Amino acid sequence: MTDPPPEPVAWSEGAPGDLLVANIGELVTNDPAAGAPPLHVRHDAAVAIRGGLVAWVGPEKLLPPEHRELPTLDAGGAAALPGFVDAHTHLVFAGDRADEFAARLSGQAYQAGGIRTTVAATRAASDDDLLTNARRLATEAARAGTTTIEVKSGYGLTVEDERRSLAVARDLPTPHRTFLGAHVVPEGSDPDDYTTLVAGDMLAACAPLATAADVFVEEGAFDVDQAREILLAAKGHGLDLHVHANQLRHGPGVQLAAEVGALSADHCTHLEDEDIGALRDADVTAVLVPAAEFSTRSAYAPARRLLDAGVTVALATDCNPGTSFTTSMPFVVALACRELGMTPEEAVAAATVGGAAALGADEVGRLVPNAAGDLVVLDAPTYLHLPYRPGVDLVSHTVKAGRLIR
Amino acid sequence: MTDPPPEPVAWSEGAPGDLLVANIGELVTNDPAAGAPPLHVRHDAAVAIRGGLVAWVGPEKLLPPEHRELPTLDAGGAAALPGFVDAHTHLVFAGDRADEFAARLSGQAYQAGGIRTTVAATRAASDDDLLTNARRLATEAARAGTTTIEVKSGYGLTVEDERRSLAVARDLPTPHRTFLGAHVVPEGSDPDDYTTLVAGDMLAACAPLATAADVFVEEGAFDVDQAREILLAAKGHGLDLHVHANQLRHGPGVQLAAEVGALSADHCTHLEDEDIGALRDADVTAVLVPAAEFSTRSAYAPARRLLDAGVTVALATDCNPGTSFTTSMPFVVALACRELGMTPEEAVAAATVGGAAALGADEVGRLVPNAAGDLVVLDAPTYLHLPYRPGVDLVSHTVKAGRLIR
Repeated sequence: MTDPPPEPVAWSEGAPGDLLVANIGELVTNDPAAGAPPLHVRHDAAVAIRGGLVAWVGPEKLLPPEHRELPTLDAGGAAALPGFVDAHTHLVFAGDRADEFAARLSGQAYQAGGIRTTVAATRAASDDDLLTNARRLATEAARAGTTTIEVKSGYGLTVEDERRSLAVARDLPTPHRTFLGAHVVPEGSDPDDYTTLVAGDMLAACAPLATAADVFVEEGAFDVDQAREILLAAKGHGLDLHVHANQLRHGPGVQLAAEVGALSADHCTHLEDEDIGALRDADVTAVLVPAAEFSTRSAYAPARRLLDAGVTVALATDCNPGTSFTTSMPFVVALACRELGMTPEEAVAAATVGGAAALGADEVGRLVPNAAGDLVVLDAPTYLHLPYRPGVDLVSHTVKAGRLIR
Repeated sequence: MTDPPPEPVAWSEGAPGDLLVANIGELVTNDPAAGAPPLHVRHDAAVAIRGGLVAWVGPEKLLPPEHRELPTLDAGGAAALPGFVDAHTHLVFAGDRADEFAARLSGQAYQAGGIRTTVAATRAASDDDLLTNARRLATEAARAGTTTIEVKSGYGLTVEDERRSLAVARDLPTPHRTFLGAHVVPEGSDPDDYTTLVAGDMLAACAPLATAADVFVEEGAFDVDQAREILLAAKGHGLDLHVHANQLRHGPGVQLAAEVGALSADHCTHLEDEDIGALRDADVTAVLVPAAEFSTRSAYAPARRLLDAGVTVALATDCNPGTSFTTSMPFVVALACRELGMTPEEAVAAATVGGAAALGADEVGRLVPNAAGDLVVLDAPTYLHLPYRPGVDLVSHTVKAGRLIR
């Protein structure tokens, strides 16, 4: 007899675990050595996790005897897949913009300046309040199957407020902390002076706490020269780069992402063919955030053109209180199928191994030996239910590093 | 000291209960005697439920002493609203059409004939299997805040298979069972012969188990004369009437619904101005099902024109395995705001008191004395979070007749 799995714990609690996930009817592996692309699905499979890492994946009837004694989660013939990798969120903030959301439904358009509302609330909040709010959202994301989450600063916009936002992020269960001092120019600041601050003192204070940097390239936020200055300075600090690019209108953000060697260009709503070529040629992942386009009632990104051109595509929530207040990757997958013209296979790949590419995190997003022991068990026989059953809470278990976190 | 609330039970279990829901920061009442229309919101409110019915609603500081000793659910300052009334579902079926769904994403259009796949699976299933599947979906709906759910037959299409579908529905926790023998003409049957069967022997066998009847008026399903014959026969049996009307193209369904005095015309995707006038003049509720339009990638219903003309609008899931496999009214509310041009207030009203109108069920959808003690407590400060936080599982408690069912 094997032991049953331990009780679920909070995402941030406990050491990496040992777990056998057995009786998986359909397993998305994202392992080129298994099944057909893009998802490389296995059937009647099992995943053995030891010390938080995948020790073995394969058909259950071939499970080596040494893994049979692990604490066991019986998937009951349901589908399982790698935990979702949400490569774009803004979890560190305070305040609620439900009223602004309701006003926008009455016809007001989104402008980048709405960010300033959250900046004021975030500056006024205590560290504890910021951490409590971010933890609540990270837990909500884990319940929806997310096991890797990128977290940006960007609602502080002073040296101290950006630094403490990243310090809060360090207490979240994620190694992916992105410095976004260049989210918007704070009220009353000169754009060039603020750029100098971000690329200088602010970056110096924040880089030790961050793993990446990001700039919002947009009319009303930062122009291409300001953005380049900040991104190159961040690169000099050894940070990975992301760019908020081409969100509200066509602009130079995507080309800049390719030029500076960013891991990802995020949003990518307004693209010319040469932008798509630049992403492909520079191997920049396009991070698409259809939930933001859903909530702001704007046009959706041209996912089909990106995929057909061979660009790596990721899906992310863009969770933030202004334009996309969701933590649900299943919802994003459903939207991608309805609105972006993606197939279920493409959407699930983009929400797992695509997110991993956007974060430069090869150890997640796939279930192969020595990868992270992160997976989701669905209350469904196939991953197709993610878009087939929109809005339904389909996650029965979330496993992070061999620990049950739902 | 008051007693804590009892542990949640299954929807179908237990007698109507006594419960005080206290510390509600924002309470949607739908009571014209309270607050501003359409939702008639109260703040810092409490709801006392005795014997499954609302005994008192008002500002908590005015709570009469006799209700203070009830078992108490502390809402912690969160928002609460009447339980959702889902006025259009097809819960009695067998089988899964995920593969058909995936194929449709590759460009195939929905035709009514897809129903026949589910008919074959339903006929082949045991009563127990049908009941288990329907109960699972009803429980899922309850977890998403639904406390009243209409359930249609319509995947049997023989006298015996329709009768047993309604017998299965009788074992579900709902008094709203709709006979939909006229869902589609079964393979190999002559449409007029089948119409005669439905209006005659099938209706005679099914009417004792049903509370309403419905006909799918559409090219490929039933024409207006066939539909009228069935609806008038059902009326003769004392059943309420609903009509699947104007879903795939403009047709006579809406006008027929008005003519025969139906409670509701459902779908209403393709409407001329005279259809809208007919609905208003005959006081027929338009039941809109945007999740079906989401899943079939079809155009959305003209909710704005209906509302502006003064038609009563309801929102429903249309839960079924072919075209809308969701039980989530919060998802439908979010879609209504994004895609139907409804305000959050209009959408929440349509999902509660609007659904009640579609079912002729004045006792639900509003929190007033002697109404059903059915409500939802959100993990959110305001009902605005339903569209503001799409895809997120926002329901912290569901109360049905004073019993906690989540």
